[in-house]
Amino acid sequence: MAMKTTRKQNYPEWYQNVVSEADMAENSVSPGCMVMKAWGYGLWERIQRVLDDKIKETGHENYYFPMFIPLSFFQKEADHVDGFAKEMAVVTHSRLVNEEGKLKPSSPLEEPLIVRPTSETIIADSFAKWVNSYRDLPILLNQWANVVRWEMRPRLFLRTREFLWQEGHTVHASMQEAEAETVKMLEVYRDFAENALAMPVLVGRKPEHEKFPGAIDTYCIEAMMQDGKALQAGTSHFLGQNFAKSANIKFVNQNNELEYAYTTSWGVSTRLIGGTIMCHADDDGMVVPPHIAPYQVVIVPIIKKPEDTEKVMSYIENLQQRLRAQTAFGEKLRFKIDTRDKASVDKVWEWLRKGAPMVCEIGPRDVDNSGLMVKERIYLNSPEGKKIMPADEFVTTVGRRLEDLQKQMLAKARSRLEANIRTDITTPEAFADYFAHSNEWIEDGKQGKVAFVRGKWCGDTATEEILKAMKITIRCIPFDQSGTTGPCLLTGKDATLDVIYARSY
Amino acid sequence: MAMKTTRKQNYPEWYQNVVSEADMAENSVSPGCMVMKAWGYGLWERIQRVLDDKIKETGHENYYFPMFIPLSFFQKEADHVDGFAKEMAVVTHSRLVNEEGKLKPSSPLEEPLIVRPTSETIIADSFAKWVNSYRDLPILLNQWANVVRWEMRPRLFLRTREFLWQEGHTVHASMQEAEAETVKMLEVYRDFAENALAMPVLVGRKPEHEKFPGAIDTYCIEAMMQDGKALQAGTSHFLGQNFAKSANIKFVNQNNELEYAYTTSWGVSTRLIGGTIMCHADDDGMVVPPHIAPYQVVIVPIIKKPEDTEKVMSYIENLQQRLRAQTAFGEKLRFKIDTRDKASVDKVWEWLRKGAPMVCEIGPRDVDNSGLMVKERIYLNSPEGKKIMPADEFVTTVGRRLEDLQKQMLAKARSRLEANIRTDITTPEAFADYFAHSNEWIEDGKQGKVAFVRGKWCGDTATEEILKAMKITIRCIPFDQSGTTGPCLLTGKDATLDVIYARSY
Repeated sequence: MAMKTTRKQNYPEWYQNVVSEADMAENSVSPGCMVMKAWGYGLWERIQRVLDDKIKETGHENYYFPMFIPLSFFQKEADHVDGFAKEMAVVTHSRLVNEEGKLKPSSPLEEPLIVRPTSETIIADSFAKWVNSYRDLPILLNQWANVVRWEMRPRLFLRTREFLWQEGHTVHASMQEAEAETVKMLEVYRDFAENALAMPVLVGRKPEHEKFPGAIDTYCIEAMMQDGKALQAGTSHFLGQNFAKSANIKFVNQNNELEYAYTTSWGVSTRLIGGTIMCHADDDGMVVPPHIAPYQVVIVPIIKKPEDTEKVMSYIENLQQRLRAQTAFGEKLRFKIDTRDKASVDKVWEWLRKGAPMVCEIGPRDVDNSGLMVKERIYLNSPEGKKIMPADEFVTTVGRRLEDLQKQMLAKARSRLEANIRTDITTPEAFADYFAHSNEWIEDGKQGKVAFVRGKWCGDTATEEILKAMKITIRCIPFDQSGTTGPCLLTGKDATLDVIYARSY
Repeated sequence: MAMKTTRKQNYPEWYQNVVSEADMAENSVSPGCMVMKAWGYGLWERIQRVLDDKIKETGHENYYFPMFIPLSFFQKEADHVDGFAKEMAVVTHSRLVNEEGKLKPSSPLEEPLIVRPTSETIIADSFAKWVNSYRDLPILLNQWANVVRWEMRPRLFLRTREFLWQEGHTVHASMQEAEAETVKMLEVYRDFAENALAMPVLVGRKPEHEKFPGAIDTYCIEAMMQDGKALQAGTSHFLGQNFAKSANIKFVNQNNELEYAYTTSWGVSTRLIGGTIMCHADDDGMVVPPHIAPYQVVIVPIIKKPEDTEKVMSYIENLQQRLRAQTAFGEKLRFKIDTRDKASVDKVWEWLRKGAPMVCEIGPRDVDNSGLMVKERIYLNSPEGKKIMPADEFVTTVGRRLEDLQKQMLAKARSRLEANIRTDITTPEAFADYFAHSNEWIEDGKQGKVAFVRGKWCGDTATEEILKAMKITIRCIPFDQSGTTGPCLLTGKDATLDVIYARSY
């Protein structure tokens, strides 16, 4: 039962439908912001839990810094403010008064406050207070917070004015250690995207003009959506001594000399949910990777005659007891018995639209056969996606099967990514011709009309204008460089850098 | 090794010292806001985890709503805006421009936005969209979020301009059901305060003039701090149809009639951490209840000669393996081996100041004896607070012992609370005389000069002025009413209501 718009027909409309049919989020009356509903926020809670564990395992501790940053802090780092000045929410008053029946802002602040678009400046100020000696270093911290960037074309999960994220901030005694931290956290993100979200990514460095404002180097993970566009899914910044200098983070090193420290920052956001949707959802709705599914298994009782109720429900109660002891991905199995007073066929479809990995139906005949019917979301339209199986077998295999389904989702997404990186385009003419096509979604395993192109780039600043005109971006300079020389796909000049070109979100 | 200020000497200064010596939080450059550091935020993470489980167990799901609320929303509920208008952060611009080297707010918003002081108005707007029929009810949701109230006398954890909290919001088809929800969530808070925070509370209803702006009834849990002052630790509001009417939340009932729904809201905040400090900390620093301790056990290796390192560390490694299998409060034991390059005596004191429930020291002699030295934080100054015990015994009893320590903390706090509710003051003269004394901290089990008074209140609105002049508040009208009649402690008039009078935070 496909949704009313398929990916092929209209990809952006399909995306909106997936989000609304899965009841994940909706646009808010607060302009450009979203309301995250139970299923969407539930995904975020799972993402938080899994990623937070990894962030802590790598030695970081959670802190919480104020969301209001004094305006003057942005004066300190010129590149940083240039990057964010156009999209900042500014608090100017601390009171409302009622004037002739109308509420008006009152009590203007001495210094306006900015709602954090990111927290480098205010955290650097704390670092400056906390760091005196090399013995105080490194400081490795993270925070989970809301941030605000005044987007003009907001889109659920992908670009909202307020969004939720984690931002790691660290300070180190040496450049080498700070660079290693930047790369280490990128690797945490790659591993998380691939293993928790089943979303394969390319890893690399951003070109100069795509760097984070104030960074020396920005590293990123880039994912491919089903329409062939790239999504920046996470970034890790080596900030060098830029913020240390603007905030005065100095320490006495082992030779008893005073020097500036080195900082890093890295983050992922609720945008990952948008990426997960566009990587896995299909024409029937959302498909959630089992590892982060709020419920991995949903059981719907199929009761047509009231006299069957007790029989079916006591069977499910018994099954429930046994499922409580099961695990998947090293954690307790997350399952739900949907007993709402609603037609069972509607309930089943609701959970399939939400992308619950397994939806089980249990009616009187299943009780007689000590079995159940299992629908696996990713195989919804294949004959093997619907299985009648003994309850014993289901209970003992469910955890492993969920882990297998997760692997299969990753494998499918990886084959799509690999099939859609063109490496055979070697001249500016062929390149321009290629991207002149309109976007369309990519069928699995087949090459789409508009995918990624891996090719040469000369690095000239003049290429920025060419890219802008073509509406293409350089997604990253992959870590795995070929070292060969060839013509730049934008200018035709000799070039050695391999880069990934793509349309993007 | 008491801190430089004791509770008796200067209670407010002692409080600041506890927070800073335990490295829990500090004042921020962002005026009136705080930086929550690892140990303070770690407590909040534990509070979140335990309370979130209870909120979910009672059928609520987590959502996330925008933090910006259009100004006009506050126009809708008159009492609500009156209650919050004086302390609102107002966003008026969405951009900064550089004018003559100075950053200035630019791009004024068409309608100013308020940073949520609480979310009733914006959530009610969503409820109005989501609710059509009685079949859509109840909706039971919660969110974990930051909120802003422009406090003029900020104080770490107790009153900061930005703070973290959870706010539950529900909508129901009947008054009875909404009232039952309000009382149910108050009971969740009482249970949480007493069992997770070891902080006994009084439960009751707020008098009319202390209600949440826009509520029909506000219920609360009130705790007693060691200086005899009351702290409102959580509130639960029955909002009746007030917000339903202002936001137009209507539904078709079972008789096919259109009617307004009934809503509730309830919240606790990072203020709970302030309450935990003032309930349990002592002159040596913080004391953390084991249930919410980020680390319940900290092990400090005592190595004086480098040649002992391997011996001690391999013994600790072995102990660590065994501790991993232990549980406390139904969860895995949380412990830390402190291997920092720092004098061990300083490390031990640092953890005692932070209030880690158990700090263990292990040196070469302990290895020889297959034992360890255990310091229990709550018995720091008693001879029995320091025990040398076999490692086997420690491993097998640690979980149960932590649970016992938790109970002992609650019992101690409860005996202090009970000893300090005066019920023998029955005339306005005696009452005025009693509160004319200055505040001081309460020794355990002994009655302090300024404690709570349980006595009669006539309920006249004129009593508000008397209370203000005396700097006393009515904390609550306890659920357990005696039903007797006696003179109001403020006016001397005949009165039947029993209330709790106290100074408060």
